[in-house]
Amino acid sequence: MRGSLPISRRSVFKWRQVAIGTLGSAKIMFLILGCLALTILAVANRNRTGSSSLMGWTGDVDRSYSPRGRYSIVMNTWKRYDLLKKSISHYVSCPKLDSIHIVWSEPDPPSDSLKRYLNHVVRLNSRKDQQVELVFDINKEDSLNNRFKEIKDLRTDAVFSIDDDIIFPCSSVEFAFTVWQSAPDTMVGYVPRMHWVDRKKGNGKYKYGGWWSVWWTGSYSMVLSKIAFFHKKYLKLYTDEMPASIKEYITKNRNCEDIAMSFLVANATSTPPIWVKGKIFEMGSTGISSIGGHSERRTECVNKFVGEFKRMPLVPTNMKAIDGRDSWFW
Amino acid sequence: MRGSLPISRRSVFKWRQVAIGTLGSAKIMFLILGCLALTILAVANRNRTGSSSLMGWTGDVDRSYSPRGRYSIVMNTWKRYDLLKKSISHYVSCPKLDSIHIVWSEPDPPSDSLKRYLNHVVRLNSRKDQQVELVFDINKEDSLNNRFKEIKDLRTDAVFSIDDDIIFPCSSVEFAFTVWQSAPDTMVGYVPRMHWVDRKKGNGKYKYGGWWSVWWTGSYSMVLSKIAFFHKKYLKLYTDEMPASIKEYITKNRNCEDIAMSFLVANATSTPPIWVKGKIFEMGSTGISSIGGHSERRTECVNKFVGEFKRMPLVPTNMKAIDGRDSWFW
Repeated sequence: MRGSLPISRRSVFKWRQVAIGTLGSAKIMFLILGCLALTILAVANRNRTGSSSLMGWTGDVDRSYSPRGRYSIVMNTWKRYDLLKKSISHYVSCPKLDSIHIVWSEPDPPSDSLKRYLNHVVRLNSRKDQQVELVFDINKEDSLNNRFKEIKDLRTDAVFSIDDDIIFPCSSVEFAFTVWQSAPDTMVGYVPRMHWVDRKKGNGKYKYGGWWSVWWTGSYSMVLSKIAFFHKKYLKLYTDEMPASIKEYITKNRNCEDIAMSFLVANATSTPPIWVKGKIFEMGSTGISSIGGHSERRTECVNKFVGEFKRMPLVPTNMKAIDGRDSWFW
Repeated sequence: MRGSLPISRRSVFKWRQVAIGTLGSAKIMFLILGCLALTILAVANRNRTGSSSLMGWTGDVDRSYSPRGRYSIVMNTWKRYDLLKKSISHYVSCPKLDSIHIVWSEPDPPSDSLKRYLNHVVRLNSRKDQQVELVFDINKEDSLNNRFKEIKDLRTDAVFSIDDDIIFPCSSVEFAFTVWQSAPDTMVGYVPRMHWVDRKKGNGKYKYGGWWSVWWTGSYSMVLSKIAFFHKKYLKLYTDEMPASIKEYITKNRNCEDIAMSFLVANATSTPPIWVKGKIFEMGSTGISSIGGHSERRTECVNKFVGEFKRMPLVPTNMKAIDGRDSWFW
């Protein structure tokens, strides 16, 4: 049939075929691309209200005004005003933040210009729905115990304890807070550490386990208070009931207040802490963990505290908390 | 130079070159393969004692003999003896199990042959270091409230509530138990569900959110008691303080005792539950969730209970608990 068509009709037919074919596959391509774009859009927006609302999945009222619905930052600082300014500027914009307490242990009180700057930053960067309170907690003595001093007028149950040199996205802070709400009696943090039995030294002796041992084994029994949530009742417990000998040791050695806090909470609850998955960004590297002999000093602390508590209260665990919104697999 | 060599010397030289080359790359290949094998071995064993012990990372003493260190199974069953036998045979070998309580609500008591079989299985499959206790909790009335009746002589704080048709690997049960140890006041389970605001019905009305809505949004506010850990104190609370009207509703409608338990725990603690990542295997598909109109009936329950509690106590969250030993990324 086709062979018998005259040239003009044959070429017209051919062109029609090509045109229909091209248009057809263009349509299909267009459809596929459209579907793909819609899927990507939907997936990208799955946690936003848009796509969920379409399905009738609307969340409940905001409870961030109850004492359980907000948190306070307790920030330890020491003569690093630039870092302090950066930190405060950042955290003040985080949702659900109620107040910031700066633990001040320097011999001189904070300068007027520093106070003016920080108050200005807090006013400027606070979210519209929350006026964050900024308080300097001035201490006479320079001691690492100051970071866990009881704060009498704290309005929230949750304390977010953080060093002045750590910048952490607001979304991550909020997620860790969510995790803490599920387990308000334990410590919830981003830097896990472990205690290991020291088989060389014999019974009842322990070794401090750093990041590599935690990563390798997936086990931990402490989270460091340089970035952790805990209940405000542990500030009172630390202030009133931490053995004086441990407090003196911490003041003298300028170390291990975080291990002491982990011992205190585990001793009171028999409960392991919770490690939240996330990366932290440290701006300064002058922390004590970068000093040589760090691991040995921490091991010494662990064994000293076991002696004082008359047992090893820390409870090991393997749990890691992740954000369900970022995880697609069952 | 090479061109001036006689044939025999030239070919000898060539063969030597080839031989050295081959041997050399064989050695390198061997080395690489060796390293690879060692790495794979080490990685595969990272959670075993072997590789960790080599590094001096030895865990602490086993605390599974304290009330916090073990758990009891409370298994709801209804005329599915084959499933019951399979379930008991499986779970009795799980470490840290203290006792199994079978919630029996049938009109006839369990037959002697069933009791004999189960007792035999328990004796046979119990681990050497634990003799698991098997108890039938016989109820006169057939009601779903029976599964949350107080058990007076329970030796453990942790209750693992499970249906008779769910088989779950011991390692997963143990991991969920570890998670519960971090948050002993809340419910820890594998089947998350959500309450959504029903915008069509107006203020204070809710919709029950099934698996798809949880998967899509990453949010949940309940975990179902067909496979969940909770503290034994909630059995007493359910028995003594659950409003009679809710109990009657549950008995009459044969549904929603799990939602009621979620309301009870959230009402007492203002705390969201914890969803543990893991797959569950249901042997029977005769459960009520496979019956048509399931979602509507559950929605009705949620709204009925909100009326009785005079508020919506459920707290939404996004946290998912995973096993740190299976996760390599920070």
